[in-house]
Amino acid sequence: MRPNILKMAGYVPGEQPRDGEYLKLNTNENPYPPSPRVFEAIQKNLTSDRLRKYPEPLGDSFREAAAPILGVAPEQILIGNGSDDILTIVTRAIVPEGGVLASLTPSYILYKSLAEIQGAHFLTVPFTADWKIPSPWPLQAHLVCVPNPNSPSGTFFDPTEVLRLAQESGGYVVLDEAYADFAPTNGLHLAQGKIIVSRTLSKSYSLAGIRFGFAVADRELVPQFIKVKDSYNCDVLSLAAATAAIRDQAYLAEIKAKLIRTRERLYNALLELGLSAIPSQANFVWCRSSGLPNQVIYQKLKERKILVRYMNYPDFGDGLRITVGTDSEIDSLLKALREILS
Amino acid sequence: MRPNILKMAGYVPGEQPRDGEYLKLNTNENPYPPSPRVFEAIQKNLTSDRLRKYPEPLGDSFREAAAPILGVAPEQILIGNGSDDILTIVTRAIVPEGGVLASLTPSYILYKSLAEIQGAHFLTVPFTADWKIPSPWPLQAHLVCVPNPNSPSGTFFDPTEVLRLAQESGGYVVLDEAYADFAPTNGLHLAQGKIIVSRTLSKSYSLAGIRFGFAVADRELVPQFIKVKDSYNCDVLSLAAATAAIRDQAYLAEIKAKLIRTRERLYNALLELGLSAIPSQANFVWCRSSGLPNQVIYQKLKERKILVRYMNYPDFGDGLRITVGTDSEIDSLLKALREILS
Repeated sequence: MRPNILKMAGYVPGEQPRDGEYLKLNTNENPYPPSPRVFEAIQKNLTSDRLRKYPEPLGDSFREAAAPILGVAPEQILIGNGSDDILTIVTRAIVPEGGVLASLTPSYILYKSLAEIQGAHFLTVPFTADWKIPSPWPLQAHLVCVPNPNSPSGTFFDPTEVLRLAQESGGYVVLDEAYADFAPTNGLHLAQGKIIVSRTLSKSYSLAGIRFGFAVADRELVPQFIKVKDSYNCDVLSLAAATAAIRDQAYLAEIKAKLIRTRERLYNALLELGLSAIPSQANFVWCRSSGLPNQVIYQKLKERKILVRYMNYPDFGDGLRITVGTDSEIDSLLKALREILS
Repeated sequence: MRPNILKMAGYVPGEQPRDGEYLKLNTNENPYPPSPRVFEAIQKNLTSDRLRKYPEPLGDSFREAAAPILGVAPEQILIGNGSDDILTIVTRAIVPEGGVLASLTPSYILYKSLAEIQGAHFLTVPFTADWKIPSPWPLQAHLVCVPNPNSPSGTFFDPTEVLRLAQESGGYVVLDEAYADFAPTNGLHLAQGKIIVSRTLSKSYSLAGIRFGFAVADRELVPQFIKVKDSYNCDVLSLAAATAAIRDQAYLAEIKAKLIRTRERLYNALLELGLSAIPSQANFVWCRSSGLPNQVIYQKLKERKILVRYMNYPDFGDGLRITVGTDSEIDSLLKALREILS
């Protein structure tokens, strides 16, 4: 067993209780159902012949459907078993043992685990006070992972900043756009040269259960990533679901608009409750209490069968990341918070 | 980009034509449908709530269902997105950059790709003339991958031989039992200490399309592998399908019996056609022609819309690996072979 594996703690995903008794506002799942087209597509593929045969290795049907929607070439798209698979593939292709994977902080804590699994050094650079990328970027890295919008803050920077980042860090950059569908713009058009854009269907497309993500990258890079991925990394039902979901942009626009309205309402209500919150461009809001400890609030919500994500960063402190639910779910949350904080 | 990635050729999976016009006897898919319980389980899980939420990270429902059937503890089971995912996880946990991954030869060519991705040395040891593990095992390795039954030969060795192999190679051993359900016995009971048994539902359970495999290992090892796997590596529909499939052992026994009967018929017919074939304990038969070149036979079958797997090993030569189909599919194959060879 490699010493880096024995030594590492391992990434701990948010709580996923098996029963349905909790209101889950802890892992940024979408409260709305997936597009009805997704169910039709899965039903259509639910045949003996589809299940017993291997799926398309490169997901060509998805690539051909997604390319014109994303404004890229099919050959620029790499399919993944969730965007965690994309991040894993890119890390394995780029970062050698003893190399450097860097990230901004506070941010997605999986980046650290990816570096540790690879036996690489993990270095972090704090965001600026207004949640931008520091200028100049202070260190060299084989790979820098930058989420935009960022988790847990929900903040957003101008995506073209990654051009500078790629130049100054001297390596590759993953622009992790897991939450980009909730933001005013995105960096898809930047996916060339050393910049790779990562996306997931877990959040905006309500498909966390089926595991589908993709990268958009330079067409020279994608064949290298294909060497690293498992041959059949996406299954036949996930591919069908993802293809149907990305085709239904009208449905995406509809639930996105609802979520953004609820997000703004949640943000304002948190401020009214006396919590400090950060304006968010994602499907969650980060907030902190200056009175009752954040962890106590988390615990008291959990007692009321409401799960939010308590997070504690050594160099940033702790707080609560609250997923944007439906309006009635957020009403329940706010009612509970009023009781707890009163 | 790491030099080992740029340099490697990449694993090329068997042809997966998108249309249904070919009789596919090339990638060891099962010709029979999955258990009817699989369809019921997928339908039951095809709800908005299941699709929009993350699946169980460790697949506890599958582990609890599978453990008593396999005669192991749930904590000994690691879930994988196909057994390729299992092989990837185990390799990443055990083999450092510059380390040694070894395999027998001729065998599953993915092992080489796994070593190359990891930046490790890939060493091979030929099977003995009667397809056993050489004694003594001649080299030290961090990890040795041994498939049993082996592909492409379909041959089988006494699984307890891996105890000796683990001792003599000084490292871990993956006993790759992708085809074990077609063999007279298996090595599940050996999954402790440094021996890891890998399984897939792609072959015997007719579920190549949904991507599900698992490992059985020492309960001290599984937590290390969990650190390396993606948090949600198996999706909600695959988990439901796999759980239903493994519970239906009666159905497995039924289609396995049919396949074994057809396998023996195929083997005998190949001999009658003047081909040299090896007795198989898997769901395929390896054969060679001493007349018309094997590649020409492959090509002529393909012209007749029948796909078999042409394989060529530098140290072993070439041949055809023919998947056991239904009786009528094998009739079609044999008819075509008779025409081609006459």
